[in-house]
Amino acid sequence: MDEPLLVERRPLPIEGRLGQQLAFLIEVDRLKTILRASTLAAVQRRENDAEHSWHLALMVLVLAEYADEPIDVGHTVRLVVVHDLVEIYAGDTPLYDDTLRLDQVERELAAADRLFGLLPEDQAREFRALWDEFEARQTPEARFAKAIDRLEPNLLNWMAAGGTWQTPGVTADTVRARTVHIGEASAALGEAMAALVGGATRNGWLAAGQQGVTGPA
Amino acid sequence: MDEPLLVERRPLPIEGRLGQQLAFLIEVDRLKTILRASTLAAVQRRENDAEHSWHLALMVLVLAEYADEPIDVGHTVRLVVVHDLVEIYAGDTPLYDDTLRLDQVERELAAADRLFGLLPEDQAREFRALWDEFEARQTPEARFAKAIDRLEPNLLNWMAAGGTWQTPGVTADTVRARTVHIGEASAALGEAMAALVGGATRNGWLAAGQQGVTGPA
Repeated sequence: MDEPLLVERRPLPIEGRLGQQLAFLIEVDRLKTILRASTLAAVQRRENDAEHSWHLALMVLVLAEYADEPIDVGHTVRLVVVHDLVEIYAGDTPLYDDTLRLDQVERELAAADRLFGLLPEDQAREFRALWDEFEARQTPEARFAKAIDRLEPNLLNWMAAGGTWQTPGVTADTVRARTVHIGEASAALGEAMAALVGGATRNGWLAAGQQGVTGPA
Repeated sequence: MDEPLLVERRPLPIEGRLGQQLAFLIEVDRLKTILRASTLAAVQRRENDAEHSWHLALMVLVLAEYADEPIDVGHTVRLVVVHDLVEIYAGDTPLYDDTLRLDQVERELAAADRLFGLLPEDQAREFRALWDEFEARQTPEARFAKAIDRLEPNLLNWMAAGGTWQTPGVTADTVRARTVHIGEASAALGEAMAALVGGATRNGWLAAGQQGVTGPA
């Protein structure tokens, strides 16, 4: 986590507040290199965090009507654009990797301090607050953002005829437990998720058994 | 442009309006495969449109304070999230490729008809209107979104010590002409762009000569 900033390779000819903001905006280019466990629907390669974050933003715009509580769509988009930034230094933690999940919070808090600390102080606070809001799921916008974050990889799993559903030890019950946030924010999207799990189980893309990893969502 | 939709490979077990929206949201996965001329700052490979669109969204959030006209930040983010979708069927048109630019409008209009037509009619109109607004640059939000769209690849060029600035025939004058939108939306960002062009010319990353491609911005 202590490697030099990208911008240190070629310092910008721009000083002050704007120079600091542009240095941050260059550093976040790293999000494009953080690979997720999911594979794309369009081609056979893993998705990265920047692509995922863009996909969530568009999903929020298209699916906002299904939020069970009123949401500010623009604010929800802000949350998903920012939600994975800490993975630049903390790495992605796959949903079904219970070892990596053990120290996820600690790794991500340290990453947030470093990354958001690159911004001018007022914006460091503002972006840290967006990330905290997403993580805490105490606002309707954060709950809907989290639901969309859980739905997207399941669409990709459907298109991959398995994907991360085929992680060893994962069954339909595991998937239901780890996607419970979807139905909590939107009954309609929760039903769609149930239809995906049902269809995937019938198609043999997801183990029907009840044993295996369930744990906290 | 007439190949089957991605979702046709594995029809979703979800019907009606939501099924139609999810089919669109799977089809747009293709944006992750549309390569741009720019290379990333973080690793040596070309950027794709989904990564670029995410990067613009974050840049809008960080740099909104520099807009010379008041802007609705949430709406501006919407514009950048949607602005490149038509390239799914029309392909990317590099800024310095004057041959591809000749029929760009025609290709993109046909692509917009097909892609937005996948959505329910009300949303097809809504997303088409966002794209039209971005292209027309008649609102403060569209002008700022366009400025950010032009600024981002220049940050990547700086980090690449050349990048698309080294396209044959391109000089500092070409770059100034094709990035004029930046200063039109934000004097501060226009100055930053001028500093990048000045620095790049001094460093030998961009030809100083005035001959070569200039053309319309």
